[in-house]
Amino acid sequence: MVKINENYLLLENSYLFVEVNRRATKYMEENPDKNVIKMGIGDVTKPLVPSVINAFKDAVDEMADVNSFMGYGPEQGYDFLAEAIIKNDFNRWGIDLDLDEVFISDGAKCDAGNIQEIFALDNIIAVTDPVYPVYVDTNVMAGRSGMIKDDGMYENIVYLPCREENNFVPELPSEKVDLIYLCFPNNPTGTTLTKDQLAKFVEYAKENDALILFDAAYEAFITEDNVPHTIYEIEGAKEVAIEFRSFSKTAGFTGTRCAYTVVPKEIKIKDSEDNEQSVNLLWNRRQTTKFNGVSYPVQKAAEAVYTEEGQKEIIENIDYYLENARIIRESLSEIGLNVYGGVNSPYIWVKTPNDMESWDFFDLLLEEANIVGTPGSGFGPSGEGYLRLTAFNTLENTKEAMGRISKLSF
Amino acid sequence: MVKINENYLLLENSYLFVEVNRRATKYMEENPDKNVIKMGIGDVTKPLVPSVINAFKDAVDEMADVNSFMGYGPEQGYDFLAEAIIKNDFNRWGIDLDLDEVFISDGAKCDAGNIQEIFALDNIIAVTDPVYPVYVDTNVMAGRSGMIKDDGMYENIVYLPCREENNFVPELPSEKVDLIYLCFPNNPTGTTLTKDQLAKFVEYAKENDALILFDAAYEAFITEDNVPHTIYEIEGAKEVAIEFRSFSKTAGFTGTRCAYTVVPKEIKIKDSEDNEQSVNLLWNRRQTTKFNGVSYPVQKAAEAVYTEEGQKEIIENIDYYLENARIIRESLSEIGLNVYGGVNSPYIWVKTPNDMESWDFFDLLLEEANIVGTPGSGFGPSGEGYLRLTAFNTLENTKEAMGRISKLSF
Repeated sequence: MVKINENYLLLENSYLFVEVNRRATKYMEENPDKNVIKMGIGDVTKPLVPSVINAFKDAVDEMADVNSFMGYGPEQGYDFLAEAIIKNDFNRWGIDLDLDEVFISDGAKCDAGNIQEIFALDNIIAVTDPVYPVYVDTNVMAGRSGMIKDDGMYENIVYLPCREENNFVPELPSEKVDLIYLCFPNNPTGTTLTKDQLAKFVEYAKENDALILFDAAYEAFITEDNVPHTIYEIEGAKEVAIEFRSFSKTAGFTGTRCAYTVVPKEIKIKDSEDNEQSVNLLWNRRQTTKFNGVSYPVQKAAEAVYTEEGQKEIIENIDYYLENARIIRESLSEIGLNVYGGVNSPYIWVKTPNDMESWDFFDLLLEEANIVGTPGSGFGPSGEGYLRLTAFNTLENTKEAMGRISKLSF
Repeated sequence: MVKINENYLLLENSYLFVEVNRRATKYMEENPDKNVIKMGIGDVTKPLVPSVINAFKDAVDEMADVNSFMGYGPEQGYDFLAEAIIKNDFNRWGIDLDLDEVFISDGAKCDAGNIQEIFALDNIIAVTDPVYPVYVDTNVMAGRSGMIKDDGMYENIVYLPCREENNFVPELPSEKVDLIYLCFPNNPTGTTLTKDQLAKFVEYAKENDALILFDAAYEAFITEDNVPHTIYEIEGAKEVAIEFRSFSKTAGFTGTRCAYTVVPKEIKIKDSEDNEQSVNLLWNRRQTTKFNGVSYPVQKAAEAVYTEEGQKEIIENIDYYLENARIIRESLSEIGLNVYGGVNSPYIWVKTPNDMESWDFFDLLLEEANIVGTPGSGFGPSGEGYLRLTAFNTLENTKEAMGRISKLSF
């Protein structure tokens, strides 16, 4: 008799954005005259830039001609893209990588979700809290957690709180953990770690034979000097860290789909027979067995992000979003709210006034200012009492939204 | 201390096509004057058809405009494509599906590899032999097998041999199995099951509470009447079968990446507390958590496959490959070889002459006729003594290759 994977039954049923969408839709249906401004979901709004569009279409044209048609490509992605990635995203920070350390994929969500497969089920995982739900859920599905507890945390998963009290800098785990998910600039808080702060985690990983799974999907939004653009800026990180990157927020690829994961060959783990195993080879085996590469025209489109013109164009878009972030940050500060993030990130993390619960503040903003945010509690227990706003709307809508909030009294 | 998933260490190291490529490359380097014809890897060679190219480029143009730009799409794919799929691939055979029973993805390899995640680790799986390696390898990686034995079979996996002796029709499992992978038209043998033959597996699944994972990636090549185009043509199959489909071979999407999986809501499995669980919801949870949808322009390109013009164009390409298949089949038959497949499939499965081993016949064809095939033994123990040729080369090369083989004496 076929049996299901019952770990799936341990998952919380309601998905955060489904509930956000349900409440927003209900409000809009009941109030069709209201102009609701969505600042909830972290999706870009600017179209693909001209350099990307041109390269994308040229590559589609190649697919029309028998002499330039591309069939199956390498599961790991084409060298032309891996070369551009290494040169632009790593060499410029003084880091060198081999081509076979870069695995191109259709999404950082997929990679961050799939990576746990290559590790044993009895590893202890640690996550910062609040957190991007994919890290937790994929480990629950695999069977690395127990039940969810009343406090909203799963048994057997170590949570590292990030709140005002510690300035959103997670403490090192007080118990032994094996796999540590870190995302900086952080989703959802928009906060970052300095190089020194990140170096402590690298040191912890080395001392405890742990591995860091570093999600740098928001790297393009870094504006401050002392914030690492890649974890490999930290000495020794190549031995203990995998890094996830994405074109989604960098170049507006949320609907186009391209990302990559760096797995340095320096990462070696001893198996139960004391033989050193290469994590790079394990991930290569995973990807070659269960993945078939990214669409060729999409990879050509991603390559164009790194041209001189492409860089100019995407930076213009990022600056546009960062200006929105600045406006949100300053407007909310002016009316006395405590706000975080938004400097190296498109996310602004707002402390709710008067210790309101996240969903209550969500409802208040929806009903009184017609603004949709995302309740912080949806990202984990330590997100309670916060709300996330994103800078991905238009400048006009962002200003309009801030004007509305400024008229509220808390 | 972080531990790896040691199931990966159970996998065979050498990957079939890597070794094929190594031998072919070595031969070509040593014999630069020889015109080597590749009939090994199952990759298409015809470019994308004009309807697909036009839709693809139009969709890229949409991504350039703020008013038509598409960000994150549904993880399950857009309704416009699911609707076209249901209408064209199922309604025409009298089968109806709901939109939320179709999950669009970037590849049937991914889906066929990932599907096992939603089932418990102690299910017994059965595969036909020879077999597409992904079914076996992904289960080995998850921990559903033991070690590989001297006979090339993994412990705890049930192999259903398909050879000349049973006319490539697998027997029903003689022991109880839970998950049965079937691929028809078959990769690698190119053979098919009739409706009655497939119905026996559906009946087995019903009687044994088993589930069939049906890979129909080669459906577009079916030419004979009594061959089912979808497993749902078999009465009751919706309760016991998941079906994988792909645009790769149908429309030349091997480098463009689009596929889909059908998970009927009728499939219910009782959990350990005797509650019925929907496999459709489990897969939905898997996909929404670990996948982020297919590139929007790619989905628009796939939709164009179903236009009247698109259908005409792709059928022309398929007929071209089928004509190659016919030439291969008839040429090899004429010189006394036993050949199978090639009627409802782009694959021709050749019995080696004089009981040669697969790799010996591979070497002979490479060295004496400068033709690259794929050794049948690479697909599993029951593939020993066979070699796979594909019809994806040009008509000219196919004729040239057959002329060369015809001059050999075995």
